[in-house]
Amino acid sequence: MTNDLDARMRFAIELARRAGELGLRYFRDLENLTIESKGHQDLVSDGDREVELFIRAAIAADYPKDGIVGEEHEAVTGSTGYVWVIDPIDGTANFVRGIPAWAVVIACARDGETVVGVIHEPSTGETFHGHRGGGAFVNGRPIKASQAASLSEGSVGTGLSNRAATEHVAVLIRLIMAEGGVFFRNASGALMLAYAASGRLLGYVEEHMNAWDCLAGMLLVEEAGGMVLKPDPTTVLRDGTLVIASGSAIYPKLKSLCSEAFKS
Amino acid sequence: MTNDLDARMRFAIELARRAGELGLRYFRDLENLTIESKGHQDLVSDGDREVELFIRAAIAADYPKDGIVGEEHEAVTGSTGYVWVIDPIDGTANFVRGIPAWAVVIACARDGETVVGVIHEPSTGETFHGHRGGGAFVNGRPIKASQAASLSEGSVGTGLSNRAATEHVAVLIRLIMAEGGVFFRNASGALMLAYAASGRLLGYVEEHMNAWDCLAGMLLVEEAGGMVLKPDPTTVLRDGTLVIASGSAIYPKLKSLCSEAFKS
Repeated sequence: MTNDLDARMRFAIELARRAGELGLRYFRDLENLTIESKGHQDLVSDGDREVELFIRAAIAADYPKDGIVGEEHEAVTGSTGYVWVIDPIDGTANFVRGIPAWAVVIACARDGETVVGVIHEPSTGETFHGHRGGGAFVNGRPIKASQAASLSEGSVGTGLSNRAATEHVAVLIRLIMAEGGVFFRNASGALMLAYAASGRLLGYVEEHMNAWDCLAGMLLVEEAGGMVLKPDPTTVLRDGTLVIASGSAIYPKLKSLCSEAFKS
Repeated sequence: MTNDLDARMRFAIELARRAGELGLRYFRDLENLTIESKGHQDLVSDGDREVELFIRAAIAADYPKDGIVGEEHEAVTGSTGYVWVIDPIDGTANFVRGIPAWAVVIACARDGETVVGVIHEPSTGETFHGHRGGGAFVNGRPIKASQAASLSEGSVGTGLSNRAATEHVAVLIRLIMAEGGVFFRNASGALMLAYAASGRLLGYVEEHMNAWDCLAGMLLVEEAGGMVLKPDPTTVLRDGTLVIASGSAIYPKLKSLCSEAFKS
């Protein structure tokens, strides 16, 4: 089984890098990109759609009986128990405006539990990767979540969900700063989760994320020695989840601030 | 005079790129970097110090009678009326933690007015540059500030100043979101100003920035057709300034939100 996961991880790394090359072609030709709004701050471009189709075709070729859930196209039901969960371009608002912080995200789940996670940032060439039980890495080098015990020792990544009340984020930021902390938001949730996994951020919190945005990064945080709020495996692929993911020493504090900020 | 500015701009572009290469060498060897804290969220590494010395030596060689003001070393008084204003690594908190969003910033001011501005991001290879009256560019291509008239059309960059009350930022974020807007903070103020100049962000606001962090970017926003709150030329090099810089249509709204958020 571990060999199987390792093979899927290597497949996902290679695929994310190829998909990233394709995404970069759209990114470098932004003037000709077609952009639609699916709603407030929820954009999609032909780059997103084409990169997802590319990823889906590669999965269908190598793992034809696996399921697929992606951001831009219909879900594919599989028969192996494995489901690929993909976000072709995480950080679309950055992508369509020319900000280089965006990522290709490929996770694989088995019975609702994430077993492979890859987050690739084409603009910098960094690929964060791991499979369950195998540790977490960036470009092959091991990464570790932060060991900080105080919010004053670094920054906490935050995001804005379409499904959550925006004022909750302002409250969270106020609470983080009241503890001597600092917030960070580069508008790619997956990338910020990868930064939490590599100890560059203390952690990442968002009131609601879709599965394709968060599963890969949450696995990496766990495999890097951090802690995450476990999503419900029976609903996460369909409904998404609250995300709290951080170094283990700071986790109780972050969880407590989120309870305060996200109460309705 | 324009030829003179153009020559200084070309000198600054080349210098920022060479300084960026030197910075990247430290960035890729983070484990051996010596980091000190100058205060809360105010870090300095030997990378910052060495890159600044490199930049100063190049200026002293080519423009020996100009003044120099930099973040990490003592000011040099000149006799030409020109003062170079440099931040070897803007985004040091990112730099020392491995987050690739940091920039080399080189501005040149004459009688307190910025006349040349260069912001170079080594991780992506983007160099934002311009001189007064000559337009603004990234890697030679013209850039334009946003023409958006509503905060719902994009994101506003924000920063945290050591000199300002942290709760002001939380208020600002709440006000931006109440207008349907979104905040962005990648922890490099210069880079976010460059993004404002290129229309990737609607604008950038920070209650207090030092001259070496903001002068280059503010010039670029102006040269890209945007608006900035003009700093006091007699005090900005020594004391820094409040920064409001954005596309011209959104500027009055942002200024009004800042007045509300930053009142004591």
